[in-house]
Amino acid sequence: MTRNVLIIPGDGIGIEVMAEARRIVEWLNAHRGTAITLTEGEMGTEVWRRTGVPMSDETIEAAKSADAVLFGAVGGDEIIPRPIRRARGLLALRRAMGLYANLRPVKAYEALLDATSLKERVARGVDLVVLRELSSGVYFGEPRFTETLPSGKRRAVDTQVYTEEEIERIARDAFLLARTRRGQVASVEKSNVMETGRLWRDVVTALHAAEFQDVALRHVLSDNFAMQIIRDPRQFDVVVTDNLFGDLLSDASAMIAGSLGMLPSASLGTADASGRRPALYEPVHGSAPDIAGKGIANPIAAILSVAMMLRHSFGLTADAELVEKAVEAALDGGARTADLYVQGGIQPVTTAGMTKAIMEKL
Amino acid sequence: MTRNVLIIPGDGIGIEVMAEARRIVEWLNAHRGTAITLTEGEMGTEVWRRTGVPMSDETIEAAKSADAVLFGAVGGDEIIPRPIRRARGLLALRRAMGLYANLRPVKAYEALLDATSLKERVARGVDLVVLRELSSGVYFGEPRFTETLPSGKRRAVDTQVYTEEEIERIARDAFLLARTRRGQVASVEKSNVMETGRLWRDVVTALHAAEFQDVALRHVLSDNFAMQIIRDPRQFDVVVTDNLFGDLLSDASAMIAGSLGMLPSASLGTADASGRRPALYEPVHGSAPDIAGKGIANPIAAILSVAMMLRHSFGLTADAELVEKAVEAALDGGARTADLYVQGGIQPVTTAGMTKAIMEKL
Ligand SMILES: CC(C)[C@H](C(=O)O)[C@@H](O)C(=O)O
Ligand SMILES: CC(C)[C@H](C(=O)O)[C@@H](O)C(=O)O
Repeated sequence: MTRNVLIIPGDGIGIEVMAEARRIVEWLNAHRGTAITLTEGEMGTEVWRRTGVPMSDETIEAAKSADAVLFGAVGGDEIIPRPIRRARGLLALRRAMGLYANLRPVKAYEALLDATSLKERVARGVDLVVLRELSSGVYFGEPRFTETLPSGKRRAVDTQVYTEEEIERIARDAFLLARTRRGQVASVEKSNVMETGRLWRDVVTALHAAEFQDVALRHVLSDNFAMQIIRDPRQFDVVVTDNLFGDLLSDASAMIAGSLGMLPSASLGTADASGRRPALYEPVHGSAPDIAGKGIANPIAAILSVAMMLRHSFGLTADAELVEKAVEAALDGGARTADLYVQGGIQPVTTAGMTKAIMEKL
Repeated sequence: MTRNVLIIPGDGIGIEVMAEARRIVEWLNAHRGTAITLTEGEMGTEVWRRTGVPMSDETIEAAKSADAVLFGAVGGDEIIPRPIRRARGLLALRRAMGLYANLRPVKAYEALLDATSLKERVARGVDLVVLRELSSGVYFGEPRFTETLPSGKRRAVDTQVYTEEEIERIARDAFLLARTRRGQVASVEKSNVMETGRLWRDVVTALHAAEFQDVALRHVLSDNFAMQIIRDPRQFDVVVTDNLFGDLLSDASAMIAGSLGMLPSASLGTADASGRRPALYEPVHGSAPDIAGKGIANPIAAILSVAMMLRHSFGLTADAELVEKAVEAALDGGARTADLYVQGGIQPVTTAGMTKAIMEKL
């Protein structure tokens, strides 16, 4: 069994946290026989400066043929021209790899309850996953354009399209995932206003009735969900939603964990004939130019992304749990990066210091 | 000066809270000479049962010719067929009246800090307004349809359209509103992905440069805003955004106040030649069938909607402040409806009991 992983550090703190992810993988190879081969791929602002595109054909090909991709973060939103980013940035990579299911687990660590914005009584024990449809919706729907009208004024158009197959595919993943967890799915859409929302609700309802009656299904309107996730997040287990709502609502949910620096993600495609499923694992945070180069970024999101890879790409559940438990133990032991610092609390460690604290618990 | 107000109680607790709003208006007429004439209009599930449409032509005409509309809530999402709701429900009323600016103030009352989900250190002192574009975007964009493909599978399409004029109109309101407050505007869009988002950012930037350089302007991506509003809501003063993001993000913001039952709103159109601006005032909450008829709904959202009417439609700032201060004083004095009840806290009063507590402070 070979496990070929392409690691793309990217820009800014992406580079810093991927160095820590690499240390964890190397430890696992040495002590747990995980036999993961890491190859490095290039992407980001520096590549764009040198070559005119943020990602080469080689990186795309390497990502497509790898067993999994570990991705740091890319920046340059303000500098790389938008058409180039669209054609050759993160969205393009998602497309090329056929990634359609974005999993974002959100967990409220007991040790970090003081760092979250939510009251402890609200946040304590939260353990949910937002499953965001990643391949369609308003991100890719056509037509999309801006035109100048005869009046000289502009008019912009975006289109959200969803097909029954696209909805069914992600809904199926949601129900299957719920079976491995607490058996509950909340499906979030705006069916009282949007056609795509109504189709979404219909398809999810039909699939549930046909194949997943053992799972509890709720439909929640997106505006109501935006409230409920703050009011009482413990009511959710698996939350499935479209690309745009998923973007917003998973970031809102993320605040329950206390910091973006805590949050891993997995983006999955469709398994091929041999059962290999395209997969990209990345921290939810971005390249954070404001703190890049200071050695203070939180490596936990990257390290937990490694754990997700172990579980979802390689079925190494015990190793995944080992890493996750080590993270929890390091936090319980008092390790805090700057993003988790609360006035008057424990003094922060560096990026490397956090990894060290975690590795001591492995 | 005549002040003709159409009051539309609607369904469920809409009826109950509008009865309380009426008592406040009657008190103001008697003690403050506000000279407001209330006429009642019909709308909702009961009307639909009787007539086949939830809102008659007469109600629409009355709403259009009134100086302001006080609106309770309409329900029936699950029973009135969707095409009828679209053609004759709340969206149709917004359209008929030309309402394009939806103001949703969010205030963290000191007395209610224990009832909010956010930590007191995060919520304390929050005082912001979400200004949601209400007339366009994905709510009304064409084409919008669901079709069955030759494969037998369905495909649904929604379209989001924004014109430069629509964006400029709401952005102008945001800057003008900010001048009456703390002079800060956050403009929220998804310009890194959506064409309408990019046009939004361009138009807001240009208007700011041309006419409002005295106001501080920030651009915030919608996913980032969804986090920031939980992480640190005090950073916001006026938040301007499109129809769909406004729907989600104003509901998320609303949680800062502790309960939906606290939140008023105003929806405004364009002033006519005589300076009269179409306006509809309504609590943010819905008809709440689960608690309807029990006499326990919180009337504060409705009463604060009256205050918004006094301020925005009639320029009666002193009277608006009188009502707002009475609400705050009643809360400080310990009055709580059931939605504000926290385990072990002050025992709740009824809907009428809350109004009484407020009127004692007038
Ligand atoms: C960078 C941007 C295109 C992206 C998205 O909206 O999908 C990001 O917000 C994310 O969630 O990964
Ligand atoms: C009922 C629904 C159409 C409406 C909306 O989405 O605008 C509601 O959520 C609101 O915010 O007033």
